[in-house]
Amino acid sequence: MNPTESYGRLVTTLKEIGLLESISYLLGWDEQALLPTKGTEHRANMLSLVARMHHEQFTSPRIDEMLREVEGTDLVKDPESDAAANVREVRRAYDRATKLPASLVEEMAKTAVLGQKAWAEARSKSQFNIFEPYLAKTLGLKRKEAECVGYAATGNPYDALLDTYEPHETSSNIQRVFNSFRQQLVELIGRVQSSGKKAPTEIVERNYPAKVQEKLARDAASAFGFDFQAGRLDTSVHPFCQGVGPGDTRMTTRYNERHFNDAFFGVLHETGHGLYEQGLPKADNVGLPLGESISLGIHESQSRMWENLVGRSRSFWKWYYPKTKSALPDTLKDVSEEQFYFAVNAIEPSLIRVEADEATYNLHIMLRFEIEQAMLRDEVKVRDVPAAWNERMKQYLGVVPPDDRRGCLQDIHWSGGSFGYFATYSLGNLYAAQFFEKARQDLGDLDAMFARGEFAPLLDWLRKNIHRHGKRYTAAQLVKKVTGKELTADALMRHLSKKAQELYGV
Amino acid sequence: MNPTESYGRLVTTLKEIGLLESISYLLGWDEQALLPTKGTEHRANMLSLVARMHHEQFTSPRIDEMLREVEGTDLVKDPESDAAANVREVRRAYDRATKLPASLVEEMAKTAVLGQKAWAEARSKSQFNIFEPYLAKTLGLKRKEAECVGYAATGNPYDALLDTYEPHETSSNIQRVFNSFRQQLVELIGRVQSSGKKAPTEIVERNYPAKVQEKLARDAASAFGFDFQAGRLDTSVHPFCQGVGPGDTRMTTRYNERHFNDAFFGVLHETGHGLYEQGLPKADNVGLPLGESISLGIHESQSRMWENLVGRSRSFWKWYYPKTKSALPDTLKDVSEEQFYFAVNAIEPSLIRVEADEATYNLHIMLRFEIEQAMLRDEVKVRDVPAAWNERMKQYLGVVPPDDRRGCLQDIHWSGGSFGYFATYSLGNLYAAQFFEKARQDLGDLDAMFARGEFAPLLDWLRKNIHRHGKRYTAAQLVKKVTGKELTADALMRHLSKKAQELYGV
Repeated sequence: MNPTESYGRLVTTLKEIGLLESISYLLGWDEQALLPTKGTEHRANMLSLVARMHHEQFTSPRIDEMLREVEGTDLVKDPESDAAANVREVRRAYDRATKLPASLVEEMAKTAVLGQKAWAEARSKSQFNIFEPYLAKTLGLKRKEAECVGYAATGNPYDALLDTYEPHETSSNIQRVFNSFRQQLVELIGRVQSSGKKAPTEIVERNYPAKVQEKLARDAASAFGFDFQAGRLDTSVHPFCQGVGPGDTRMTTRYNERHFNDAFFGVLHETGHGLYEQGLPKADNVGLPLGESISLGIHESQSRMWENLVGRSRSFWKWYYPKTKSALPDTLKDVSEEQFYFAVNAIEPSLIRVEADEATYNLHIMLRFEIEQAMLRDEVKVRDVPAAWNERMKQYLGVVPPDDRRGCLQDIHWSGGSFGYFATYSLGNLYAAQFFEKARQDLGDLDAMFARGEFAPLLDWLRKNIHRHGKRYTAAQLVKKVTGKELTADALMRHLSKKAQELYGV
Repeated sequence: MNPTESYGRLVTTLKEIGLLESISYLLGWDEQALLPTKGTEHRANMLSLVARMHHEQFTSPRIDEMLREVEGTDLVKDPESDAAANVREVRRAYDRATKLPASLVEEMAKTAVLGQKAWAEARSKSQFNIFEPYLAKTLGLKRKEAECVGYAATGNPYDALLDTYEPHETSSNIQRVFNSFRQQLVELIGRVQSSGKKAPTEIVERNYPAKVQEKLARDAASAFGFDFQAGRLDTSVHPFCQGVGPGDTRMTTRYNERHFNDAFFGVLHETGHGLYEQGLPKADNVGLPLGESISLGIHESQSRMWENLVGRSRSFWKWYYPKTKSALPDTLKDVSEEQFYFAVNAIEPSLIRVEADEATYNLHIMLRFEIEQAMLRDEVKVRDVPAAWNERMKQYLGVVPPDDRRGCLQDIHWSGGSFGYFATYSLGNLYAAQFFEKARQDLGDLDAMFARGEFAPLLDWLRKNIHRHGKRYTAAQLVKKVTGKELTADALMRHLSKKAQELYGV
């Protein structure tokens, strides 16, 4: 069989596997958003059947054969061609999937269920020792996973884990970016702290009826360009965005009637993810890397851009505050645009990552990134995680959790085995700022556009420069290609400093 | 392998196939209730993948082998045993599925898509000739289907089609029941017509806010016993109820703010289906006949019972009218319980089946049942369907459709190839009345219970006598077993006559 024929067969096979993936996405979305309590067990059976079929089909030796028949041929000579990108990324995923023995995958899945259960109990009781043995077990399995997957390129086992979430990325490169970033952040936050100015956050803690929040959030999402004929917004306990397949991207949120930020900025965040999903060339590439997002970091760059760089900008609120105020005349009767803008942009060290502001958020991430690497290298023992956590909280943010519930037990990630995930949140912020600076250079006065409610130029720019490429480039290649530079913290620091200056005079 | 082992393997295989079925149910439910418009094509691809996998697995020769290893052995000697019922029904379904050549199945699927499209256009333009060639083509394919499936037992090809919806039933038996029923109905409706009394239907056409309707409908469904922790109620264009699997039964409705009946009795109807789904022993029988409903007719008997025999009863409204009135104080200010009760029980010949009342509804069905049999026997040519339709409408209901849109083009069924389906609607009404009379005998004063809002005794009776058996008995066996008699129209006629007497004095 010639390479073109083999590639054709590979594409056909992958498209069918892609349909199975879509099915598991929908089953998962429905589980989070709609499933009646008593349907949980049956849903788990449905999901595990699909996962098994998916695994069987994707790890079939036929995939390897087809890849071999194409690899090294003229068809994939141009590394930016469709075929080259698809073959490169399928090979990566295939090798990873086949390197993990089924017994290890099974043990990790079981341990994740038990670990999450123990973690939930430990968190609710704020007793780290309940979770400790499960964390130790998980860590051992992640070390095995790293050995199976391999890390010859960098010699660092952590990179084998990071690779799941941020393909082609290395911890040393992230460390390079974080090193300068951390000190600058700590200083900036220190200056804000000693400015003597406080944001009027009481404003966003007033009465915000869910119906009104929903209308405001939907209108903003539509204005940003989210296509509700190709997507939905529903509610769920843990907000998320799921691209089910072409023409079907689903966001969820939850409404807190005593806090404006949760749902509103939550929806803007998911809208950023949703716009990326809707902008990927999925229709012709179901199941193919070319129809998929590059990495969690790049995905997060889209959500963070629309949430923070657009949604928390002065120009956005110039356009949206009058609408917000007229939708909430009683709640916002005595509030000026300036006050509201300050309230949604408060910079204040706090204990909980998911509640942190644009600036302090990144320190929460660095702390986790450092601790999980130290755990993997056995430089921090599992039993010492709480101490290591609290020490860094004090050093970076000047606050110390009064208990582990609000400290090292706050996040679910480690309990389910997600080591190497956290860094992608900050990478998202960093990519976002660097892309956004370039968009501003290319498009001119973005602020004037936002102040008129015009977001199409920015979205078109993202579509053209990022979305339409799917996985054609790695994250590092894309950043270089789009902005002309490798990733640094400069753009994000410029953005944060400017905001601190404007609001806190520092 | 011994029969017990073979049966065990069969059960395991069927349970996995059952999970695929659940998946297609969820994909279908989601398509109707939630799917964004632009996701339609991808959803069709997902559904057809699942259908293909299901067909491949269910028609695999391994199923036949396992069945053969069990059939005729001691394991299935007792026809009422679990194994006997499962083996009998899987054999039926397997034979049917393997008798139809893939080419015919494919042609029918394609013709259904084209036929439904042509039908939609024909209906909107009220031009039967647009639909005529597709109906002729569909009829030809259904004749082929009947030949493939076979009908040796009765010599009537129609029975091979009917069997899809009402297994083990024959058209001659239905005709036996309908024969006496039709004349009695026509006479009853004639008496109502000439009584000079008119129901105050204007009452149910006032202002009914969707929110209030939803609350009233949900409360009634809960009171009947629908478990919302194991089910949902959402909206869709065409209301339906889908049992996705154990712990997950989903109903939909649509709210018409200018008509009380549509959503309210619609939800009571779907609640009847939902209670049956929730009462089937699915948890231990996913994919097995013992966890499935007997037939469309038996399913419809449950929906019709709760909708009409309970939900339109005087005693139900004795309990529920005060609640309804207090939820709608303005709308129902000047309306007495008696007037409301009469309004929701109006008997009036009309053109549209889905809007027809409890009595006239059955004549709409008989007309369709007769015409589709006559078409299949070529006694009515496809081009003469409109004339045959209008002639019977005049004869049975005394009204003639002014156009085919409100005549023979009103229903989607034939366009998608559903020949043999309509009769199950009336069978549902008939089974319901006969079961209900027996429940009343067994349970005593049901009316006193309903007037107190007590529905658990009736539901328990249905669970015990009908739901828990799954497909253990055929519909005819079940009716005989539960009521001691074969199906007749007597119970339904007694019910309708009593109501006509009470409301119209005839």
